[in-house]
Amino acid sequence: MAFVDNRFEERRRTVATELAERRIDKLLITHLVNLRYLTGFSGSNGALLLGAERSVALATDGRYQTQIAQEVPDIEARITRPVAPALLADVDGPQRVGIEADHLSVAEFEALQKACDEQVTLVPVRGLVEKQRRIKDAGEIEQLAEVAELAAAALRGMLADGAVRVGRTEREIAAELEYRMRTAGSERTSFDTIVASGLNSAKPHHGAEDRELVAGDLVTIDFGAHARGYNSDMTRTYAVGEPDDFSREIYEVVQRAQQAGVEAAIVGTPLVDVDAACRDVIEAAGYGEYFVHSTGHGVGMDVHEEPAASRNGEGELEDGMTVTIEPGIYVPGRGGVRIEDTVVVTEKGPRVITDLGRDLLVV
Amino acid sequence: MAFVDNRFEERRRTVATELAERRIDKLLITHLVNLRYLTGFSGSNGALLLGAERSVALATDGRYQTQIAQEVPDIEARITRPVAPALLADVDGPQRVGIEADHLSVAEFEALQKACDEQVTLVPVRGLVEKQRRIKDAGEIEQLAEVAELAAAALRGMLADGAVRVGRTEREIAAELEYRMRTAGSERTSFDTIVASGLNSAKPHHGAEDRELVAGDLVTIDFGAHARGYNSDMTRTYAVGEPDDFSREIYEVVQRAQQAGVEAAIVGTPLVDVDAACRDVIEAAGYGEYFVHSTGHGVGMDVHEEPAASRNGEGELEDGMTVTIEPGIYVPGRGGVRIEDTVVVTEKGPRVITDLGRDLLVV
Repeated sequence: MAFVDNRFEERRRTVATELAERRIDKLLITHLVNLRYLTGFSGSNGALLLGAERSVALATDGRYQTQIAQEVPDIEARITRPVAPALLADVDGPQRVGIEADHLSVAEFEALQKACDEQVTLVPVRGLVEKQRRIKDAGEIEQLAEVAELAAAALRGMLADGAVRVGRTEREIAAELEYRMRTAGSERTSFDTIVASGLNSAKPHHGAEDRELVAGDLVTIDFGAHARGYNSDMTRTYAVGEPDDFSREIYEVVQRAQQAGVEAAIVGTPLVDVDAACRDVIEAAGYGEYFVHSTGHGVGMDVHEEPAASRNGEGELEDGMTVTIEPGIYVPGRGGVRIEDTVVVTEKGPRVITDLGRDLLVV
Repeated sequence: MAFVDNRFEERRRTVATELAERRIDKLLITHLVNLRYLTGFSGSNGALLLGAERSVALATDGRYQTQIAQEVPDIEARITRPVAPALLADVDGPQRVGIEADHLSVAEFEALQKACDEQVTLVPVRGLVEKQRRIKDAGEIEQLAEVAELAAAALRGMLADGAVRVGRTEREIAAELEYRMRTAGSERTSFDTIVASGLNSAKPHHGAEDRELVAGDLVTIDFGAHARGYNSDMTRTYAVGEPDDFSREIYEVVQRAQQAGVEAAIVGTPLVDVDAACRDVIEAAGYGEYFVHSTGHGVGMDVHEEPAASRNGEGELEDGMTVTIEPGIYVPGRGGVRIEDTVVVTEKGPRVITDLGRDLLVV
């Protein structure tokens, strides 16, 4: 008998309960990340139809016939194309079928309406699976910790080998970091790597260009790995050669702000207060106008997901959530600093899974 | 005066003409690839509202204020958040405003409907910009040729250095190939790199795993780079050590099929005939059931875009289109071969931009 991972069945059961409460008969899952979360299937084409009465139907196309049988041994998949209309066509009678309103395009929605029995009503549903995904179970936390360590180890190795140094370009550093993560098991980056040096460090969303690092630079490295469905996200800023007083000052402020944010990442803290924990330190130091983004976001199967630790973040931190703590100061024409960790919120307090020193390091 | 690139204005003018023909007053562009095509703006948040009467309004948020002024000097951008509702809120009176039905989610559509003047009617529009994007102009062809050569040169370099060899893992080969492309100017891969060796070569959508190459393997490498908004796509299959008769046979059939496909990639050929050019060769050799996908697709700002060279592809090849020619044979439990080039369709005949030998190479 094939081993059945009950995590997936539990997650589907939670969806079924929520559907019953919302008086929705079935939910059509077409978003691939949610499909993977609910079944374990990692292919690039598939759909799942879950019923409030716990019925389940799964479909993919012929390319994934072997893979889906291995990854989802407890559900027999239909092999068909296109997958979503095929699942919907089997629903008949007066039923309310939810669709993922945040992920289905207007054109896809129209095509599904045509594929439906005329007694079926399609109901736009938002955030139902995402709400469940906010709270990570033990297996997910292990996966997140593993991919975070894979990434941190890559940068740690580069520092040990002197690979972040004067004369190398931003692009070379990004390429080497990505190569080290890739050989260590990363399937891809979780977002485009940022290596922002000198005046580029004042741009929060700089990429990585042909600029060479020179003595006196700050260099901000923001990067992540993706493996087995989960992502990492962390940032460090280093001084290239001896930093001037301005660089030391903004680094020290950001480091204190980041520490305050990590300490605030405990069960029950309102998300606005997590943001304020960082923002207050930066504002008190007179740099408030240069902290131009939010404090952080959840990290999981998406690298940016709920919750949002921002000035208008809703709700509070709960046991099993993840949140990045990533304050920054960006002074145009001078330079910038960002320090970012990914934190797992636990009953025992904040657990930082992106393990690498935060004191100002001169490379 | 800032230099204004008239390509973008010409493209917007073509959209305006099409809107007038369709009796749509304005078109809201929210899909970032289309936004970049029509303005040159490469940021991660923005919207554009084009009028049939040639009006134009552009918006992004504060992070991109400097960047958008540099990239789009001929349009003054509004700095706001959220961008699309802000542009729509300025439209009043009885107007029909098109939205990109293939890219806007059901939830985004509902939010826009709330942001509109009640006399405004939102009209789902499909493929209007994509249709224009099918025909590449000279500047685009140059960009595509550059990124294709960047990628081909990376694999050429690996072959010259003996980097594809017995004992290396699929993952190591993928990592090194990606590293070489990255240092040569690629911003990211255009899709997850495939290095499929031995029995894995029989899976068209294999990734890259920890399997080591052994003598007697076939190894299929399918990869692409992304730079300055454009993508590359190519595949080669190599023999690791002396190939057996089966490997030689399927290689020879795929090579002949691919050559026939390239020769068919000329102006005026129906897309079904491009597919048939490859498929007929493989079927005649008795391997028809093992060619389980279509012959090819367009390559441009998306790595998979129109046209589709498949059994039900619509229309014919036109001057300035791109199309991949990528037949394959995949025999489960034995092995597989795929050879893929990206071809630019020109009045002078097919121009292969992925320049690397196609004869069977033993590594």
